[in-house]
Amino acid sequence: MPNPKRIVIVGGVAGGASAAARARRLSEDAEIIIFERGAYVSFANCGLPYHVGGVIQDRQRLLVQTPESLRARFALDVRTRSEVLSIDRANRAVLVRELETGKEYRQGYDALVLSPGAEALRPSIPGADDPRVFVLRNMQDMDDLMKTAQAGDKAVVVGAGYIGLELAEALSRRGLKVTLVEKLTHVLGLADAEMVAPLHEELARHGIALRLGTSVQAVQPDARGLNVVLENGERLSCKLVVLAVGVRPETGLAKKAGLDIGPRGGIRVDAQMRTSDPNIWAVGDAVEVADFVTGDPAVIPLAGPANRQGRIAAEAIMGRESRYASTQGTAICKVFDLAFAMTGLTEETLRKKGKAFRKIYVHPAQHATYYPGSHPVSLKLLFDTSEGRILGAQAVGVYGVDKRIDVLAVAQRAGMSVFDLEELELCYAPPYGSAKDVVNMAGFAAANVLRGDVELWEPEELPLLTDQALIDVRTEDEFRGGHISGALNIPVDSLRDRLKQLPRGKELLVYCQVGLRGYVACRILTQRGLRARNLSGGFKRWQMCQGAGFVPPASESEMRNEEGGPAAGKGSRL
Amino acid sequence: MPNPKRIVIVGGVAGGASAAARARRLSEDAEIIIFERGAYVSFANCGLPYHVGGVIQDRQRLLVQTPESLRARFALDVRTRSEVLSIDRANRAVLVRELETGKEYRQGYDALVLSPGAEALRPSIPGADDPRVFVLRNMQDMDDLMKTAQAGDKAVVVGAGYIGLELAEALSRRGLKVTLVEKLTHVLGLADAEMVAPLHEELARHGIALRLGTSVQAVQPDARGLNVVLENGERLSCKLVVLAVGVRPETGLAKKAGLDIGPRGGIRVDAQMRTSDPNIWAVGDAVEVADFVTGDPAVIPLAGPANRQGRIAAEAIMGRESRYASTQGTAICKVFDLAFAMTGLTEETLRKKGKAFRKIYVHPAQHATYYPGSHPVSLKLLFDTSEGRILGAQAVGVYGVDKRIDVLAVAQRAGMSVFDLEELELCYAPPYGSAKDVVNMAGFAAANVLRGDVELWEPEELPLLTDQALIDVRTEDEFRGGHISGALNIPVDSLRDRLKQLPRGKELLVYCQVGLRGYVACRILTQRGLRARNLSGGFKRWQMCQGAGFVPPASESEMRNEEGGPAAGKGSRL
Repeated sequence: MPNPKRIVIVGGVAGGASAAARARRLSEDAEIIIFERGAYVSFANCGLPYHVGGVIQDRQRLLVQTPESLRARFALDVRTRSEVLSIDRANRAVLVRELETGKEYRQGYDALVLSPGAEALRPSIPGADDPRVFVLRNMQDMDDLMKTAQAGDKAVVVGAGYIGLELAEALSRRGLKVTLVEKLTHVLGLADAEMVAPLHEELARHGIALRLGTSVQAVQPDARGLNVVLENGERLSCKLVVLAVGVRPETGLAKKAGLDIGPRGGIRVDAQMRTSDPNIWAVGDAVEVADFVTGDPAVIPLAGPANRQGRIAAEAIMGRESRYASTQGTAICKVFDLAFAMTGLTEETLRKKGKAFRKIYVHPAQHATYYPGSHPVSLKLLFDTSEGRILGAQAVGVYGVDKRIDVLAVAQRAGMSVFDLEELELCYAPPYGSAKDVVNMAGFAAANVLRGDVELWEPEELPLLTDQALIDVRTEDEFRGGHISGALNIPVDSLRDRLKQLPRGKELLVYCQVGLRGYVACRILTQRGLRARNLSGGFKRWQMCQGAGFVPPASESEMRNEEGGPAAGKGSRL
Repeated sequence: MPNPKRIVIVGGVAGGASAAARARRLSEDAEIIIFERGAYVSFANCGLPYHVGGVIQDRQRLLVQTPESLRARFALDVRTRSEVLSIDRANRAVLVRELETGKEYRQGYDALVLSPGAEALRPSIPGADDPRVFVLRNMQDMDDLMKTAQAGDKAVVVGAGYIGLELAEALSRRGLKVTLVEKLTHVLGLADAEMVAPLHEELARHGIALRLGTSVQAVQPDARGLNVVLENGERLSCKLVVLAVGVRPETGLAKKAGLDIGPRGGIRVDAQMRTSDPNIWAVGDAVEVADFVTGDPAVIPLAGPANRQGRIAAEAIMGRESRYASTQGTAICKVFDLAFAMTGLTEETLRKKGKAFRKIYVHPAQHATYYPGSHPVSLKLLFDTSEGRILGAQAVGVYGVDKRIDVLAVAQRAGMSVFDLEELELCYAPPYGSAKDVVNMAGFAAANVLRGDVELWEPEELPLLTDQALIDVRTEDEFRGGHISGALNIPVDSLRDRLKQLPRGKELLVYCQVGLRGYVACRILTQRGLRARNLSGGFKRWQMCQGAGFVPPASESEMRNEEGGPAAGKGSRL
């Protein structure tokens, strides 16, 4: 079907708008009609929380395009407040209702693109239909929320995914007292628990009250506002509630039309974004894509992939060969002064899928430690056990988190291994990086494991062990500031001279602050015939695992050490 | 030669220190001796200009390691102020002079690693031996320079490479009035002229006087200090001069020992960093490596490669199979508020080597334009004409320059094409990026060229053309603010309605502010059978070319437009 005359697009935000613009650039002849149920097209939905928080002050900035600007630039026929009710596949037509007038009419198409997005889940909690209970998906939701949210009021945000976190920060910046409730025991359920533990501290530091591992049972109005009743019995008094418990592909129209739905509940499409009907394409949050690592179907609601899928659907419609490869799930979230980012699979997902993997942790500074303002990037790298292919990465820190995950996302997509990471040649000048960048350091640590230069122990093993001794190779000052209970302190720099003080016949479980000195110590020990393993990521990672509840909570003395050794960088809050 | 007993390393900074540390981690048995001519080992030579400028206030921060710390951690025998005078290859020994005592002695080796670095060139200018004429290579140079440099004095920096630029900024921050003299007509001779034109403005904005395209003929002392006499006759009065005219591999020792020297004047090594003598390795600024793109021998003095080469030499010495691949030349330089970074080859080098290439320019913002603080990243991408492989990239901007060049450096190393760049899945949230990142945008622009969706015109063509018409498709306001002389203004949004106003029978040379609207305009025009080409990078790139002298300087009216259209981002200084 080269150069179809009529292209109809359902949904005018990320994927739909991209498809329309691309289609026009490829064909000046086509008639291109966008139906958008809302009042706005191509608005900055990722910007909504930042307007709520006052970071983006001018509401107009969120309206990236208007029907008029799209008509002028791309000769698009944009019909807002127009809901597509059904698809008549046999006759290639959609039934449209004008929401203002109630008028219904049929619109024929040669090619149809569905970009309906995902709907915010509204759990069936008693009281969730109260007008002071909000979701945030579009401009209207935002306007409604902002009208209600007054400085000094209390708010409860339910769900600590990306949107929930951004909204908690936004409402807090607006002057509200925010409690964030999350059913899981950690924020960002998509991430591994220990990697987001620093976010818990960051939220607390900014006055957000966290309620983890509990869910909302009911929302009850009272004279002063609302009461959020938690599973644990607690009642949170507030003026408003925002539900951010996730999204679900909006597949109503597709289902009604009999299009195939995939196992994960999204519209099933091929690599050209074509649905089970050869004249209908679907893109964005409503579709299932292939996961980059496993190839399994996945629903991954992200703006970048939605835009690319829109572009690819338009190209396919115009007879081009473009193919959508797969989605890695590269994503980032700002939580006050911290950034958390990830790409590929998490440890939790790899375990669920039964995939073999290895992992390392590093915490190098984002730039030369001798240059002012250095802060560590805590990075977890997951890789396969044979060739060392990158399976996934997560990072958290103040600066440079986006850069490292971007670099790793490209390396992963290119099929690079951890050995390739050792050799990456990245920008270095003291204000921007280090001669051995965070990613090189991760490569070294991972390659050392695969080459057999060092063996690792995991915090989770510790309670199970009997015939081992814990050796802390940091300085005496660091040790005094906090350590794993039961550890013997022999600083690495005196290790060669104090070998006799090591417990005899035991396997030595070595750790330092970030993992580097522990590695050197293990090399010293194993070359002398002793059995020794290192804790990748060191005490700093131990503390993250404590935050995640993987290991016993810190005693008083353990809590004191926040800073760490020289490699951890001064002034870190991680 | 597995596990040699005695490893001798000449030079204790980047490459040498890395080789020593790695060798120790691989072997606790070896005797490892480092000879360092200077007083310090493993100091932060990249940090020297920042201490001069007061950004790194504590001089101690530059001393990353000391002989004592290296002895404690790695059991290294570090001998500073010890110069290796010659190599007795037949007997595997070096002759060493203790600089403090004048005592000379022989030191045998099983494996020898040369890491002598590069020496700062001192051009044979009359007067260049005056003690107020400095170079900056080590701690001593820095200390000497800082003793002389007094706030309020005038200084002349000769040479505008990375070090010259960093020093000009440093001395200016120290309160000196700085003139920067560069023989070439642009700073950073390794870069393409138009891509560093914004640095000229940035330097001027911060009070650095630039003298481009002229060289220093003599340095003459007078009663008030020094006079720097330029080729153009100008005399610059000053209190001190810093020479930063480049470096040369320090190959004296290698040459005297009869080791092979390569065509570019560096020590010749194989992929394991082994010289023509099987018991001698060489690493760092003194060696020749293979250029990543061409495979040609190249001398690329960078800290990252030096560190990796040191590591690889140590592994080779210990019988491991590691290989040094090649060097891309990824580098970055801070010039006040701007960053310039590059990877791979430049247009100038590609032309010199006679390699066919295509190029595009884009200027997207570093993050969502609706999020506060957005600034453009001006990116030039060079790629091959057939498969679209990445040949090189350069970028300049306020934020996010390092990230984009890092991403492109990884993509280049992985052998990715511009089509792969379209599909990269990078971190996106409004504070960090855009759903279509700078690198995606570069991929789109480049792929459009290779797919034949748009043809481009180049600023350099303009004076040669006769049967063409220039069409400016920006808004009337933008046009009034400045345009290319002779252009006809038809805003893209009214182009479809004003086709009749286009000159008949002429090829249309279209441009907009950054290249996006020009591309849309060309699609509109060519699909109607008109001949049209776009200016990649738009008027903004035109202005960069003006800065580089490729095109006629701006008239009064052209100068007024600094800001550009909506896509250029508000508040930009680029």
